[in-house]
Amino acid sequence: MPLLVMKFGGTSVADLARIANAAEKVRREVERGYDVIVIVSAMAGKTNELVGWVEQTSPFFDAREYDAVVSSGENVTAGLMALRLQEMGIPARSWQGWQVPLLTTSAHSAARIEEIPRANIDRKFAEGMKVAVVAGFQGVSREGRITTLGRGGSDTTAVAFAAAFDAERCDIYTDVDGVYTTDPRIESKARKLDRIAYEEMLELASLGAKVLQTRSVELAMRYKVKLRVLSSFEDNDETSGTLVCAEEDIVESKVVAGVAYSRDEAKMTLISVADRPGIAAAIFGPLAEAGVNVDMIVQNIAEEGRTDVTFSCPVGQVKHAERAVMAAREKGTIQFSELVADTDVAKVSVVGIGMRSHAGVAARMFSALAAEGINIKVITTSEIKISVLIDRKYMELAVQALHDAFELDKAA
Amino acid sequence: MPLLVMKFGGTSVADLARIANAAEKVRREVERGYDVIVIVSAMAGKTNELVGWVEQTSPFFDAREYDAVVSSGENVTAGLMALRLQEMGIPARSWQGWQVPLLTTSAHSAARIEEIPRANIDRKFAEGMKVAVVAGFQGVSREGRITTLGRGGSDTTAVAFAAAFDAERCDIYTDVDGVYTTDPRIESKARKLDRIAYEEMLELASLGAKVLQTRSVELAMRYKVKLRVLSSFEDNDETSGTLVCAEEDIVESKVVAGVAYSRDEAKMTLISVADRPGIAAAIFGPLAEAGVNVDMIVQNIAEEGRTDVTFSCPVGQVKHAERAVMAAREKGTIQFSELVADTDVAKVSVVGIGMRSHAGVAARMFSALAAEGINIKVITTSEIKISVLIDRKYMELAVQALHDAFELDKAA
Repeated sequence: MPLLVMKFGGTSVADLARIANAAEKVRREVERGYDVIVIVSAMAGKTNELVGWVEQTSPFFDAREYDAVVSSGENVTAGLMALRLQEMGIPARSWQGWQVPLLTTSAHSAARIEEIPRANIDRKFAEGMKVAVVAGFQGVSREGRITTLGRGGSDTTAVAFAAAFDAERCDIYTDVDGVYTTDPRIESKARKLDRIAYEEMLELASLGAKVLQTRSVELAMRYKVKLRVLSSFEDNDETSGTLVCAEEDIVESKVVAGVAYSRDEAKMTLISVADRPGIAAAIFGPLAEAGVNVDMIVQNIAEEGRTDVTFSCPVGQVKHAERAVMAAREKGTIQFSELVADTDVAKVSVVGIGMRSHAGVAARMFSALAAEGINIKVITTSEIKISVLIDRKYMELAVQALHDAFELDKAA
Repeated sequence: MPLLVMKFGGTSVADLARIANAAEKVRREVERGYDVIVIVSAMAGKTNELVGWVEQTSPFFDAREYDAVVSSGENVTAGLMALRLQEMGIPARSWQGWQVPLLTTSAHSAARIEEIPRANIDRKFAEGMKVAVVAGFQGVSREGRITTLGRGGSDTTAVAFAAAFDAERCDIYTDVDGVYTTDPRIESKARKLDRIAYEEMLELASLGAKVLQTRSVELAMRYKVKLRVLSSFEDNDETSGTLVCAEEDIVESKVVAGVAYSRDEAKMTLISVADRPGIAAAIFGPLAEAGVNVDMIVQNIAEEGRTDVTFSCPVGQVKHAERAVMAAREKGTIQFSELVADTDVAKVSVVGIGMRSHAGVAARMFSALAAEGINIKVITTSEIKISVLIDRKYMELAVQALHDAFELDKAA
């Protein structure tokens, strides 16, 4: 029997009516002949309520108890979904993480999945169960304590089940109908992609397109799980949504798949740093220890023995970054003349696996921005991505200009 | 190390402030040198919310899924209580039913406790844990599915833990400060009892004094667990509340311990029943099948070969009772001339283990009621209890008259 994994996020199971709506989507797949594993999140808002209670009770909480408390929201949804399916005449039962068991590391609140033994669920499928409803986001450690996978963990749960049970596909139902060439709120001509490669999705996810958790895409890529993103609130057929898949499953692709952006960036420059071997480590070690997420890094030779070092980080971390860098200067581990912070920048990126085989993408990007009079402050590139820092006030204009320049409104 | 079980009901853990208040009571016992097992209910209102969702989703629900959903409320409280205790510097951790494991039958929603292996919790106590916080009301079946013990099951959980761990005492914290000689809302001179025998408490519990679940008192009696009922909202010392204990632990007791009442009773009489061997079974068999909780039964010989049969049941079950009796008459299994229902009656009872050794209690009861002009409709007696059915409008007067007649306002 072919098997499908279907995952419903918090807004898709926010109340009993939405749970019933999600159950209808499950029914359709059962009628198409699939055995189904359904992964559910907590009803929207429930996890935040539980987290609030934990934080109010104990500011520096024991992560084991945090996990025991916050995992309860998914248990409720799993039971209700199983009941709804039964009410529709579909043999279903709920599974909590420890019942599967979904075995994880003991890194509470950020546990990693170690193993999903199939025996228990397979036996129930063999006995006639059509749908296993599994509480997402949670597992159990070897010590028998409840663990959680961190925020967005239900996507990861879904992909892990799809891998363990050799699912034909893993369908992620959410409140958007797919992955777009860019944010439709910024560019009205943004177009839904039918397919996107894992690598592209990873770059888009980490760049701020919040459709899928980075971790779940990584896992899907590793185990070659076909991932489909589609809407809970529309009628779907087999071609709906966006399929996240291997590069070789995309017959014809454009050079650039999408334009991503990140609004709240800051650019910091250390001017006239005394250059010597190990200076990068001396700068970025203290920043990492201070919890600053450094993104782009650029180094320019200014004059003999001196260099300017520029990096970007989230604008909310600028104070931490300044403190860390100044402390390092006081200790004498780094020397520089001035620290300049620019907190009015944004990052815009073009992403596409086609860039590997096509030259000229960077040139096209830079001239499109130049044509709009947008000054580029920092550039970084990877094999399938080019990112630039620009003044924040030009961000929307830049996204639109790049969307036009690469003709993303037209299908491949 | 001496061990104490402390149980906190829904109103005692209704919000974070009350959980903190309950944790203070636990701290005091830890400081007195006890290891403590805390049993918690769901925050007040939570279980009803979950039950509502289940019933709306599936009117004839799968009890296994019902249990999986409704047990989640206790898990939240257990985690929060453990966190609160940790925050106060007390080594504590939460345990869900399956983690203990608290093994039950597979009779979902009404499971019976089969076994509580001590090894897991004992090992943690040996490692320095001072408080085990256990989610009440829930267990796990041999098939690995979550079970619940039925409403009020947290009291039963508490007593079962006290028995399994040889606890010095089982303290039930609730919103009243003990067991009273009668309902203080009816008789302002009602007095809190320092001690009450298991048997008396059982009669009072089943007669409508809602302090403790009957089942938990039965279990306490069987395993000789000393049970103390006391208030979450007062400062307590070792003599606070009411101790429910064995008869031999009550040095001096009055003949009557308390006066109980039940307001919503109905009296039904089958007039001129054709008498023959097996007629009682022919009447009460169909009533039992119809789910009618028959309480008192009286039979009077009216004339040769004919008898009047009277029974009482909750007023809400009168229609069911009528239908069952009439159907039996149509089938010809019983014959009678008339069925008379009196739906305006109440039951008043006096309860006391002293009645075993003291004659004259019934006479004193009847003359007290006669002195107030209250007519007795039905009488039943057991070894430690006398109950009468009277017109409902006299119920409060009867309770007051009996409280006076047996001088229950005075200590023994």
